[in-house]
Amino acid sequence: MEIKKEDCELEKSRHSMAHILAKAIMSLYPDTKLTIGPAIDDGFYYDVDLAHSISPEEYSVIEKKMKEILNKGENFERKVVSKEEALKLFADNPFKTEIINELPEGEEVSLYYTGDDFFDLCRGPHVESARQLQNMGYKIHSVNGAYWRGSENNKMLQRIYCYCFKTKKDLTDYVTMLEEARKRDHNKLGRELEIFTTVDYIGQGLPILLPRGTQIIQTLQRFVEDEEAKRGWMRTKTPLMAKSDLYKISGHWDHYKDGMFVLGDENKDKEVFALRPMTCPFQYQAYLNKARSYKDLPLRYGETSTLFRNEASGEMHGLIRVRQFTISEGHLMCTPEQLADEFKNCLELATFMLKTLGLYEDASFRFSQWDENDREKYIGTKEQWDEAQGSMEKILNDLNVPYYVGIGEAAFYGPKLDIQIKNVFGKEDTLITIQIDQMLAEKFGMEYTDKDGVKKNPYIIHRTSIGCYERTLAYLIEKYAGAFPLWLAPEQIRVLSLTERNNDYAHSIKEKLADLGFRVEEDLRNEKIGYKIREAMSMKLPYLIIVGDEEQSNNTISIRGRGFENKTGLNLSDFIERLENEVKTKKI
Amino acid sequence: MEIKKEDCELEKSRHSMAHILAKAIMSLYPDTKLTIGPAIDDGFYYDVDLAHSISPEEYSVIEKKMKEILNKGENFERKVVSKEEALKLFADNPFKTEIINELPEGEEVSLYYTGDDFFDLCRGPHVESARQLQNMGYKIHSVNGAYWRGSENNKMLQRIYCYCFKTKKDLTDYVTMLEEARKRDHNKLGRELEIFTTVDYIGQGLPILLPRGTQIIQTLQRFVEDEEAKRGWMRTKTPLMAKSDLYKISGHWDHYKDGMFVLGDENKDKEVFALRPMTCPFQYQAYLNKARSYKDLPLRYGETSTLFRNEASGEMHGLIRVRQFTISEGHLMCTPEQLADEFKNCLELATFMLKTLGLYEDASFRFSQWDENDREKYIGTKEQWDEAQGSMEKILNDLNVPYYVGIGEAAFYGPKLDIQIKNVFGKEDTLITIQIDQMLAEKFGMEYTDKDGVKKNPYIIHRTSIGCYERTLAYLIEKYAGAFPLWLAPEQIRVLSLTERNNDYAHSIKEKLADLGFRVEEDLRNEKIGYKIREAMSMKLPYLIIVGDEEQSNNTISIRGRGFENKTGLNLSDFIERLENEVKTKKI
Repeated sequence: MEIKKEDCELEKSRHSMAHILAKAIMSLYPDTKLTIGPAIDDGFYYDVDLAHSISPEEYSVIEKKMKEILNKGENFERKVVSKEEALKLFADNPFKTEIINELPEGEEVSLYYTGDDFFDLCRGPHVESARQLQNMGYKIHSVNGAYWRGSENNKMLQRIYCYCFKTKKDLTDYVTMLEEARKRDHNKLGRELEIFTTVDYIGQGLPILLPRGTQIIQTLQRFVEDEEAKRGWMRTKTPLMAKSDLYKISGHWDHYKDGMFVLGDENKDKEVFALRPMTCPFQYQAYLNKARSYKDLPLRYGETSTLFRNEASGEMHGLIRVRQFTISEGHLMCTPEQLADEFKNCLELATFMLKTLGLYEDASFRFSQWDENDREKYIGTKEQWDEAQGSMEKILNDLNVPYYVGIGEAAFYGPKLDIQIKNVFGKEDTLITIQIDQMLAEKFGMEYTDKDGVKKNPYIIHRTSIGCYERTLAYLIEKYAGAFPLWLAPEQIRVLSLTERNNDYAHSIKEKLADLGFRVEEDLRNEKIGYKIREAMSMKLPYLIIVGDEEQSNNTISIRGRGFENKTGLNLSDFIERLENEVKTKKI
Repeated sequence: MEIKKEDCELEKSRHSMAHILAKAIMSLYPDTKLTIGPAIDDGFYYDVDLAHSISPEEYSVIEKKMKEILNKGENFERKVVSKEEALKLFADNPFKTEIINELPEGEEVSLYYTGDDFFDLCRGPHVESARQLQNMGYKIHSVNGAYWRGSENNKMLQRIYCYCFKTKKDLTDYVTMLEEARKRDHNKLGRELEIFTTVDYIGQGLPILLPRGTQIIQTLQRFVEDEEAKRGWMRTKTPLMAKSDLYKISGHWDHYKDGMFVLGDENKDKEVFALRPMTCPFQYQAYLNKARSYKDLPLRYGETSTLFRNEASGEMHGLIRVRQFTISEGHLMCTPEQLADEFKNCLELATFMLKTLGLYEDASFRFSQWDENDREKYIGTKEQWDEAQGSMEKILNDLNVPYYVGIGEAAFYGPKLDIQIKNVFGKEDTLITIQIDQMLAEKFGMEYTDKDGVKKNPYIIHRTSIGCYERTLAYLIEKYAGAFPLWLAPEQIRVLSLTERNNDYAHSIKEKLADLGFRVEEDLRNEKIGYKIREAMSMKLPYLIIVGDEEQSNNTISIRGRGFENKTGLNLSDFIERLENEVKTKKI
């Protein structure tokens, strides 16, 4: 069932507030040249050309001026002028002039007035009166450099960012949320907890997973591989690069080359290779390894697959936007009759994973379709796209998936169901994707002999079951603020000795737990117990076992963990039972 | 303890036999121009320039002529001539003329006569008389094209290959071994057993591991990772590429660039990346992530690490010579006092792995040293090399490792202990390596604060515990001729139904075994049982379970496997116990 994105009332108010900001700026700095001021997810910005740099100290001055303007309660009034009149009105503003010149000949140009003394070139819509904006919560939070129209060949402007919400309480809530989010930001916390690091001379978007991060990914990877095997997925291990010949067949060379790392020069070298941005054409070779009959289908191939994307340096972010990542990849070849059931199985697998990890509540579903007006981005005919999108729509509706539509978000070879997750800052990214493809099998000559003896191309479902491990790890860090569930925690238990007299006893407990397969460390240093506890707690470990003379003589343990104070006099075997149960049920 | 390679008596005989071949060729085809004819591992070859192509039918004619010559029992006689005389004697042979011209001015030139009617330009040594060669076993087995001096700019010659052994029995044994080896050749058998494949448009040296091969590697990888964890190794997951900046620090840019895949052009691009040929400089970043004290050492980092080597196309071979491979990599940082113990631990781990896999008996140990006369290949001073090699020699002698020395086989940063394995054809390759490095820590600024408060560079041991998975898999295929031990077998058990009446019973057995974690398949097709058995046996599966009406009504199973005939009337739970024990003990 398709759901529509929320209505645009808030967006209209935010954009109207951008005009209020612009009027304030013009009143404070009359030499300013205005450019554009759109609404964004948490407010709006306005790009201005202004000789002096706006400093943080000026933010409150501007906000005060905005308040004065709002208090007047002026109306937003639309006025239509001809292109020639508009060009005259904005003769001293080269940016607006550029915009006006780009309008089709004869089109009317709309201005919006806020009071008699301010107008801006604008398509609208706006609220009727500034009175409607008086209760909004707003706050300028930063001013960055931004090139006019995003091109570094153009002039650098100042982009004034302003949070803007329906009420002052909404603003406060948002700012509080942001502060909390900053504490959880995986790009900060992940480094503090020794999960990953980055190094300038290695490069951006190429994170180094330290032992703690590697351990979490190993745990996840084994869990995923085993769960997939249970559900009838085989595995492949295919090369991370190929000759350009392969990508020419798949269409990547024509439709994805800019996103790829290419090795060699087509004009000079006999063989040109490229690192793979996707696993599809590699995994198809397993299908092509022998002749297939309808009896062999569905064939499900999974792979723990490393991919490479040549992203621009500015786009990199921690473990979420990277140049190299490892994904729980898979391709499923099936007959048309099997498509709906197999799609459902893929969705169930993905949902099971998200629920196990505790991420399901943060997920939304995007039905990513092609953009019919941007044909260059896609292979195939309109009929093929209609058929594939029609199939997916029917499946999604039958399954009651609450999706919204993303036009132009499809893969170049077919539509996708993208499972989107918002990070702590509210930024949305795709974590998991399930795609229907009826084009690539033909390109690669993948066939099966059907019941009627006729050779046909199978449908292919491209899917991930947990998405890419680095990104999932980032979401987990943020979700749990680094305090991972026991089954995922890289260090599950640390045994601390109260004094050096208790080291042997502490060590024997550590050895017992290690033999049982727990990830356990010991801290037998001659340091104050408070210091040792604080250090362990700062790593957000699930459990600490503390043993002193009393525990040693009674053959007991004391434990301490997240969310509870000391518990003393425990029996080790009881505690082990508790640990085993917690791991087995993957308690979150 | 150093052991010397076997003496060169056989080599002398083989090279003498090459002269006998040459004499036979000249007698049969007087227009031939001889070039060179060295001894090789299984005999010798002779490169000749000859207008007509020697066909397999002629091999026996040439062999017969060789026998005639041997029967004469002529002496090998050395005669020394001046360079000028030699040039006159070989005036009509441009190849020999080229060789003679390259000799230093004034050096004497030796000829070897076999009888009065044949001589060849040759440095020797030779046996005294052809009588000593009369009992040798020899057999021409192929004639290939070979460029003069290996350069494609030169003339193409015919290379006549001849097996040659001390006795006729040795020859027969060798030929039998070769036939057996061809059956085991992983490059053939591995494809037949659906372990891997290759695809032209992906590229040479980039094998695609099919589900069966991937399963074996997953089993091996988990075994290695868990065993390493038990022995105190942490794990990292580091990027597969880096900016050239990293390789400039490590020395790879100067000493290894030709073997690397480079992305981008230094003269054009702002950032140039390269795929990593080794893990070292990446893994060091985990060490560098925080300040280290002597109390933190030894620090052991393992990684299941994918590497890339830009090998020439002609060098590729199945899973053994590849452009991309995954290795059980590791680096250990320690103090000088810890070096010997930690080296020993690394060797014990490698030996444990080889013994578990059943490959230990095929292993030999090479102490790979630098070549002092090829300084360009190495970093560091003679003093540093003497110290590192001295340390390693002492350790190897203390541990009684029976090694031989390989000059010029060291890594560019330090000496290695290479564990060499011969494949079924007798070709030797390195499977496992343990290296001592006292140079790279300094280059990367890796330090620890010692007891005395002074900052020092740690020693680094570079090591693999099982080598690279693809190569190990190749050796395992050949070692077991595809009949893998149960714990490694990709498909451990197949359940076959005798008739369709028994399908439910067969399926219930398959489900029971699958629930216990066995890798089990079922064959419930309506086909003759003999056919189903033959198909399963051709995949060299460890066990087949066969169930018909009798088994079903008695609630028993029949089993069949490698090396034994049908066993009937078995209890499933007894069989499960047997299977579990076989997996647990990793029985080979």
